[in-house]
This record gives sequence, structure tokens and C-alpha cells, in this order.
Amino acid sequence: MTRLWNDPAAFADDMVDGFVRANGRWVRKVTGGVSRSTRSPEPQVALVIGGGSGHYPAFGGLVGPGLAHGAAMGNLFASPSAHQVEGVIRASEQGCGVLLSFGNYAGDVLHFGAAQEAVRQAGIDCRTVTVTDDIFSAPPAEAERRRGIAGDLTVFKAAGAAAAQGSPLDEVERVAIAANARTRSMGVAFTGCTLPGAEEPLFTVPDGKMAVGLGIHGEPGIDLTDIPSADGLAELFVERLLDPAEIPEGAAVRGGRVVPILNGLGSVKNEELYVVYARVADLLEVAGLTLVDPQVGEFCTSFDMAGASLTLFWVDDELERLWLAPADTPAFRTGSMDTSALESVTADGGEAAEAELPASSEESRRAAALIAQALAAVRDLIGEQAAELGRIDAIAGDGDHGIGMQRGTVAAAEAAAALAEQGAGAGSLLARCGDAWSDRAGGTSGALWGLILSTVGSHLGDTELPTPDAVAAGISAATGAVMDYGKAAVGDKTMVDALVPFADTLADRVGAGESLADAWKHAARAAAHAAEATAELMPGMGRARAHGAKSLGTPDPGAVSLALIVERVHPVLAAG
Amino acid sequence: MTRLWNDPAAFADDMVDGFVRANGRWVRKVTGGVSRSTRSPEPQVALVIGGGSGHYPAFGGLVGPGLAHGAAMGNLFASPSAHQVEGVIRASEQGCGVLLSFGNYAGDVLHFGAAQEAVRQAGIDCRTVTVTDDIFSAPPAEAERRRGIAGDLTVFKAAGAAAAQGSPLDEVERVAIAANARTRSMGVAFTGCTLPGAEEPLFTVPDGKMAVGLGIHGEPGIDLTDIPSADGLAELFVERLLDPAEIPEGAAVRGGRVVPILNGLGSVKNEELYVVYARVADLLEVAGLTLVDPQVGEFCTSFDMAGASLTLFWVDDELERLWLAPADTPAFRTGSMDTSALESVTADGGEAAEAELPASSEESRRAAALIAQALAAVRDLIGEQAAELGRIDAIAGDGDHGIGMQRGTVAAAEAAAALAEQGAGAGSLLARCGDAWSDRAGGTSGALWGLILSTVGSHLGDTELPTPDAVAAGISAATGAVMDYGKAAVGDKTMVDALVPFADTLADRVGAGESLADAWKHAARAAAHAAEATAELMPGMGRARAHGAKSLGTPDPGAVSLALIVERVHPVLAAG
Repeated sequence: MTRLWNDPAAFADDMVDGFVRANGRWVRKVTGGVSRSTRSPEPQVALVIGGGSGHYPAFGGLVGPGLAHGAAMGNLFASPSAHQVEGVIRASEQGCGVLLSFGNYAGDVLHFGAAQEAVRQAGIDCRTVTVTDDIFSAPPAEAERRRGIAGDLTVFKAAGAAAAQGSPLDEVERVAIAANARTRSMGVAFTGCTLPGAEEPLFTVPDGKMAVGLGIHGEPGIDLTDIPSADGLAELFVERLLDPAEIPEGAAVRGGRVVPILNGLGSVKNEELYVVYARVADLLEVAGLTLVDPQVGEFCTSFDMAGASLTLFWVDDELERLWLAPADTPAFRTGSMDTSALESVTADGGEAAEAELPASSEESRRAAALIAQALAAVRDLIGEQAAELGRIDAIAGDGDHGIGMQRGTVAAAEAAAALAEQGAGAGSLLARCGDAWSDRAGGTSGALWGLILSTVGSHLGDTELPTPDAVAAGISAATGAVMDYGKAAVGDKTMVDALVPFADTLADRVGAGESLADAWKHAARAAAHAAEATAELMPGMGRARAHGAKSLGTPDPGAVSLALIVERVHPVLAAG
Repeated sequence: MTRLWNDPAAFADDMVDGFVRANGRWVRKVTGGVSRSTRSPEPQVALVIGGGSGHYPAFGGLVGPGLAHGAAMGNLFASPSAHQVEGVIRASEQGCGVLLSFGNYAGDVLHFGAAQEAVRQAGIDCRTVTVTDDIFSAPPAEAERRRGIAGDLTVFKAAGAAAAQGSPLDEVERVAIAANARTRSMGVAFTGCTLPGAEEPLFTVPDGKMAVGLGIHGEPGIDLTDIPSADGLAELFVERLLDPAEIPEGAAVRGGRVVPILNGLGSVKNEELYVVYARVADLLEVAGLTLVDPQVGEFCTSFDMAGASLTLFWVDDELERLWLAPADTPAFRTGSMDTSALESVTADGGEAAEAELPASSEESRRAAALIAQALAAVRDLIGEQAAELGRIDAIAGDGDHGIGMQRGTVAAAEAAAALAEQGAGAGSLLARCGDAWSDRAGGTSGALWGLILSTVGSHLGDTELPTPDAVAAGISAATGAVMDYGKAAVGDKTMVDALVPFADTLADRVGAGESLADAWKHAARAAAHAAEATAELMPGMGRARAHGAKSLGTPDPGAVSLALIVERVHPVLAAG
């Protein structure tokens, strides 16, 4: 069973976060999943794979040089949406066309198909090869109806290697089709699995029994037997996979070459797999096959389901060469991959080297330096207050507001110092600090603070003197943007409850002719009162509603942090 | 629980077999475990690691260029014996000294220590660094008493990288000590695990509870709590590991650099680990640490135990460089390892290129060609009979006699054809075919047939005419060797029951002046009768005793295959 989660509804998102945090060398987070964090000097056909989550290393673990370019990562055991797939395609394609490949399941076919249509209409050449390796999911005569299980890997690897060597889309598609036609798998299971937070297992296998052909989402198998010995399981695997009806066209048992992939589904461990593999290897060799680069481990799992599958990839010379080509991904590394020529790409897919800073005026640079000072002060303040903000948030939320704000302000202050040093104007500095804050903090508050900084920045520009009017107008515009983005109004117990009175007071006071520092002081006071008053409100939106009763009497952490920040900025403005 | 095995008593051996079959690119089987199957052009300090089995990838999965040179692989959760450790040391050392490293457990300390003494007496410079990373196994003041868990990896990696770059033993030992001093881990568990064939779990954790500090063999922990959220677990890990008493000397939290290793113990899956990791990364960064090359996955398991550990490796510049250096092993691959200069080594540790063949006479080469013909005929015969031999063996044994004989005869026939082509004399051809048979077949029958071929070969030599007397004397000597090695006598229902009458009849007939072909024919008939008669015997030795009743009425498969083989050789002799 699955034991570790925070909010079961957020499990897949949390997982992708952690996956990207741990594997930034290979992947970056994009809309709908992950895409490579590096790019080869020459553009390539982009291989985009994907499917539901819960099958690690499928699918994000297979993204990297020599394998996939991106992976759409759906919810647990659920296809990614067309929107997600499209997001990953757009982040991954390099002008040479896109090959989509995924296991043959109805939901995936639907959503990947819709995404393919959408990007084709945008002029991107996009093809699809579905993986159909599970011999028990349909008879040989209807092989195109079969499901995809651990054989995914052979199709992805062949296509990824072809793309890496610069083959055009026609060729990449051809080898993917050829690899799928030469891949056969069968699986068995001893237990089901329980998804995060579920009361009941998603499916079960009776104690001491083995379900033959059970799918990786619990699709019914063909037989229920006693659990055999390790050798007995090896014999079952090999007997079924060497059935003459399952030998791919153009392949032969005697004198043939196969890559055997013995895959654990979660709780059958490596030691057991190796005991089974010893006999699998014997039986295949005795049948006359030569074994190429065997794989024993976890390649396509079903959470912690106890089970295993054997895949045979019947290689010819071309497929063997593609299989053995180097690859370097979070979960699959083979050969000696030369990564020296790779370039890093940023979260938005552009080159990591930032675009050059626009020309800036002396006065805008002076304002930028002041903003950098303010952001450093804010970082220190939030560092001190993070625990308290987390405590308030934990009463009704998930308690991560403090840490999110801390991540965001640390990133923004760092970026600001560097940009001020490089001579950025106020507008560019704020815009890029907003990106840094949002990227690093994640979550809703990160996105909203990113929006605030970049909206204000676009009102200030890099050459104009940042007048009090421009600042007030920028903050009013940012307030509107936050309300749009967050779909929140005053009274919903969010940051908006403090932001609106802050923006309004600032605009009024500046309009009445006060200095920016004085106007800011009054506005900050209004924000503080409003933040305090959120303690009397019930949350008005979404998931937070369920926690309404708990949060009554406690102010909204987003409103509190906004009030603290604007208060802290005042002395910097006054001194500047 | 563990579900897949053949004979629980043979589980660890079977596992090593499958491991080596799947990973021959990196490892070869040696006495006591595995050693690298490649050697770098320049000799290196040899890093020999090890411990009980059941912790994959510890320990065999960490053998390969840039990491360990060999791993002693004990039985399940049991230290390897001193003899095993010594075997791995001798197979791995290259004249530059040896560093032993392993988790600090009493059994391992004892056996590795005895092996160290033994090889030191043989003039090998050998040192030991035990790993002591588990903070809950002893207080900080007694850190040298602590157990080793997933922190093994950092010590092995640092030492292996130092050895790979050609550092002398003093240096390799120094960095291993430094790495251990800067490594801290803590673990939690949600369930115990059940060893192959056991009725009861080895240890348990109450349902829904988390044992804090439970060891990887079930050693008691320090606390039992409810299972926390993923974030809660991350907080527990980080709080305990950042306790001031646990910060290594010379390291600092603010501004420090750590490699975080979030390790699953078996059934906590990658998705869950990534959810936990997201918060671990946050907390470490917010504390002021820079994260270096994070690792999330399985590095030191406890079969399919549900649990996890976090290791912090507090790197300085040197340790960071060693950590990031390339490594290429079955289970741990990092960086871009140039393997082009590596040479393959054979099972006995020599260069893969066989020693040159001794000079041979024309007549001995003619005999060798005849033997190659005979071995080809035997291979075909056994190919036809393998299923039947397996069937007989399955009645009282494990049913693998047919497949073992098939592996052995295929390997011997292949080797014979190549050696005859290269001009080998009869003696060398038989000796090397015996090695091939034994290596490839494994098991007792493989060892016995290897012994038969090489003993006969040493009686024939490469220059003498292989006379009938020499052949008969060789077969008599081989019979004695088989009885010694197998501790079997006539009447024990083994191959010996057919081999003794075969050898005796052959010697008698040849002594009486018959041609070799005629004498062989009579001897083969005697073997056939004797093999048939084993159906009336009860097994006389070891484990087979329990199966005595079942096998009554069925002949011994080893005796049957011997009789079949000698019968098949007759027409080749008669024609040759």
C-alpha cells in the first residue's frame, strides 16, 4: 500500500515537484509534465512519451539525452489531458517534428490524439506510435488492440536513439513501429495496490495466488494459479513468449537475438528477480537465442504491486544498435553519453543564458538598486517569520506558506542582487525577480507574487523615472491581475483582502500629492488592518472551504505575509 | 513478503547466479561473491565491499569501474564468511593493496577481519574502514559503534573514485575515513520483511505505525509513532539530521554543501519518495545548505520492507569531486565513464585472452579433433534428451539436470570446435572444454563433468599419442576425483554408480588388449545397466535423503546422462 502523501489529491503534482527537484540535471517542469533541461546543439525530432503516474520510471524517469525529450505526466493511473500533452509537446519540439509514443489505453489514445490534432493545426508535424506489447490483452490476430506494459521501454529507446542520431521524423516513426512489432511482454501479479489515501485496494489478488496476465492498472488477467517457484515462473514466461504465434515476423528462435527485460512491478524485489532471471536466461539460451544486454529491475511499475513481467525485444541489427546506443536519464543510463556539448535550457524552454538586458537609464538603475535592497530586507524578514506563517497556514491549510514564501524571497533577492550588479533597469529587474520568485516558490502564492512583481515592473520600464504615479498604477494593475488569476474577491479570505486596500490607499494618497514613502506608509497600515481582519472571515473559495470552520479566528497567511512585506519595504523607500 | 524462490536454502546462490548472468558486462562470479569483469590498464588499489544478501543494490550492484572492485556476498542478512571475503580479495587485488569497507555489524567485522589477517600474512597490504552512518544506533559520543546503512554508498563511492584515479592505498583509506566521518543517516520503517521460505516475518511493525530508527535487519529503533504525512516525515528526517550534535566536524549548516540520499527500503516506491523529497529539499535549502547531485531511489534495501532513510553526505571540495566522478556499475551509474580502455578478465581472474596453447603433436591434434566431434555429438544428444533428464530429476530433485547438462555440453562443444581449429592438443582441449562446461553449467553436475574432462586431459597431454591405456588410466583417475569431490560411493544413487563400472570395465578390457572402441562399447553397456539399476536405490547423501522415497523406482539422472553420453561417444571412436 501507499503510505506517504500530503494531500492525496495533490499527490501526482507533489511527486512531479520532488522528481524535478531531484533530477534537474535531466528535466525541467513544464505545463503538463517534464521536458529535458538540456538541448543538443543540432535540433532533433522530439520524442514525447507519457501516461498516468504511478508507473515510475515510466514516464518522467525516461526523459534525457538518447531517450525521450518530454513526458506528459497524468494523475495517478489516469491519462494526461490533451492540454497537458500539448504543453509538453510545445516545450519539447525543436522544429523537426514530434513523435508521440505511449501505451495503448483508451484515455491516452484520446488525449494524445487531441493534442496531436491541435499541434498539427499549428503546423507541427506530429505522428503517433502506440505500444502494444502485452500478449494477454488480445489475441495475436488483434495485436493492434493490445495494451502497452514494460515493452514501452524498447519502443521509446529505439525511437529516442534514432532521434539522437539526427534521423528525420519518418525514420524515427519507422523504427518505433519496427520496435513495437518486435516486442512482446507478459506479466503476473501476486497483489494489487492501494492508491494514496484510498480506503480500499484498487484491485486485489487472492492470498497465495498468482494472477496471470493481470494489467498494470488491474485489468483482468487470463488465469489464477498458485504461486509457482522462481523456476516455474521463468518457465511460464518463456513458454508463453516463445509460443510460435508470438514470434515476430522476420524473427526466429534458433539463432535469434533478444533483449530480455525482467521487470518488477513494485514489491517483487531485485533478489527475487535475479533468481527468476537465472532460469529465464537458461531457457532462452537453450532455445537457441543469443541474449543482448539483459535488463533486470523496475522499468514500468504499478506502485507497490507485487508482480513481474518479462519482455522480449527481438532485435535485428538496426534495433540492436539503437538499443545499445548511449542514453542518460534519471532512471535509465547506458553506454557512455558525451554530455559536454549539451546546453541548459530554462524553465520556459529558452536558452539558459538570459536574453541581454534592455538599455536602462541612470535613474531607473538607481531605482533598481533600491528595489534590490528592499527585496533583501524582505528576504530577511520572511526568514524570521517563516515558522509563524507556517503555523498560521497549518491551521486551515497545508502549512507550507512559510516555506514557500521563504523560497520565493530568497530567489528574488538573489536575482535582484545579480541584476542590479549587471545594470538592470527597474522594470527588467522586477520582471526577472518575479520569474525567479515564481519558479522557485511554486504554488499559488509563488505565482501571485511573480505576477505582482512583473506587472509592476512592466509599468516602470527601464528608462523612465519611476514616479510615485507609475508605482501606484503598477500596483493597481498587479492587484487586478492577481484577482483575475486567483479568481478571488475581497472577503474571500485571501491575499486579495490586504492587497486591495493597500493598492487603493496608495493610489489615493499618491493622487493627493503625498511622497511615495509617505503614501506607502499609510497603505501598509491599511494592509495590516485588513490582514488582521481576515481572522473574522470564512474562506470563500475551492478546497479551502472545507477548512472554513477551523480557520475562523485565524488570519489568512497570504494576507499577513503581504502586510508584513509592504510594511518592511517602507523604511527602505524612506531612506532611498 | 518474498514470494519467488526455488530452494530457500539456495536463494542467495541462485540470486548471485542470476545477477552475474544479467550483469556480465560489469561482474564475474568468483569464490565468495563477485569481482569486476574488466580491468583498467593501470593497476589500482582494490576496493572490496560486502555484507549479507537482501540489501540490493548493496553490495554486488555497486561493483564496476569507478566504484568497488569486488563484493563478498553472504547469505541472506548474514555476513559473508572469512573464506568468502578472502576469495573476493584475491580475485580483485591488483598488487596495489586492498581497502575493505562494509557496514559496522559484528559478523562482518569478524569475518572481514579474519580475511584481512589472512591476506596480510600472504603479503597483501589490506586496510579496513567500516561504515557507521546510522545516527540512532549509538549516541554521537560513541559514533564508532554505530551501524552502517545507506551511507555505505558515500564511503564506497569516495574510496572507489580515489582508487580509480590511481591514488595509493594510504590516500584511498584516508578519503574513506573522511567520507564516513561526514555521512549521517536515519531510517524509519512501516513493515518488516519475510525471508524466502520463512513462515513468519523476521520482524514486524504494528499496522499503521512507524518505527523510527529501526535497522535494516530489524534492529530495534528508538520510537514508535503514527505514520506522518510525507512532509512530516521530511521534517523528522531533517530535524534529526540537522541536530547540532550530528553536524560533522568541519562542516556547517549555513553555507554548507550536502549530497542528500533518500533511500527506499523496498516497498516504499519512487513516487512516494519524490513527494517526501520535495519537502526534504526545501527544508535543507531553507536551512542554508546547497544540495549537490541528489539521489532518490533504492541504494540499500531490506528486501521488500516498507521504509525509507535519509542520508546527508557533508561534502568538502575533495569529497564532492570524488562523489561526482564517473562510475559505471549494475546499479549506480553517474557521469560519463570512458570504458574503451578496459580489458575483459575471465572467470578465474586472468586476462580474457587465453594463455597460448602449449605445443602439440600431430597425433595429439588428430585425437583432439576426434574429441571435438564426440563433444558435438554429445551436445546434440543431450539437446534431444534434456526434457527427459529434467523430468527424471524433477521426481526427486529440482528438475534442472537436463538444462544444466545442456548448458555444459553446448559450452564444451563450442570450445572444442574453436580449440581444434586453433591446433590444440588433446590434453589442452579436454582441460579447457572442462572449464567451459563447468563455468557454463554451474551446479554439482557441471563441476563433476568439468573435473572428468580435465583429469582425462591431464593424462593425455598434448604431445603423446593418446593410447587406450592412457585413456583408461585417465578415466580411472577422473572417477577417483569425482568420488572425492562429490563424497559419494557406489550405491549412493549418483553418477558414481554408472561411472565406476564404466571405468572399471574400460580398464579391464583395455588391459586385456581390446581396441579402445571395443573396450569402450563394453564399458558403455556396463554403465547403462548400472544407471538403470539406480532406480532400485535410495539416495545416500545430503539433502537428497528427504526425497528418497519419491525417487525409488526412478533412476538417478546423473547416472543416466553419463550412460547416454558414453554410449553416444562409441560410434565416434569406432569411426575415428
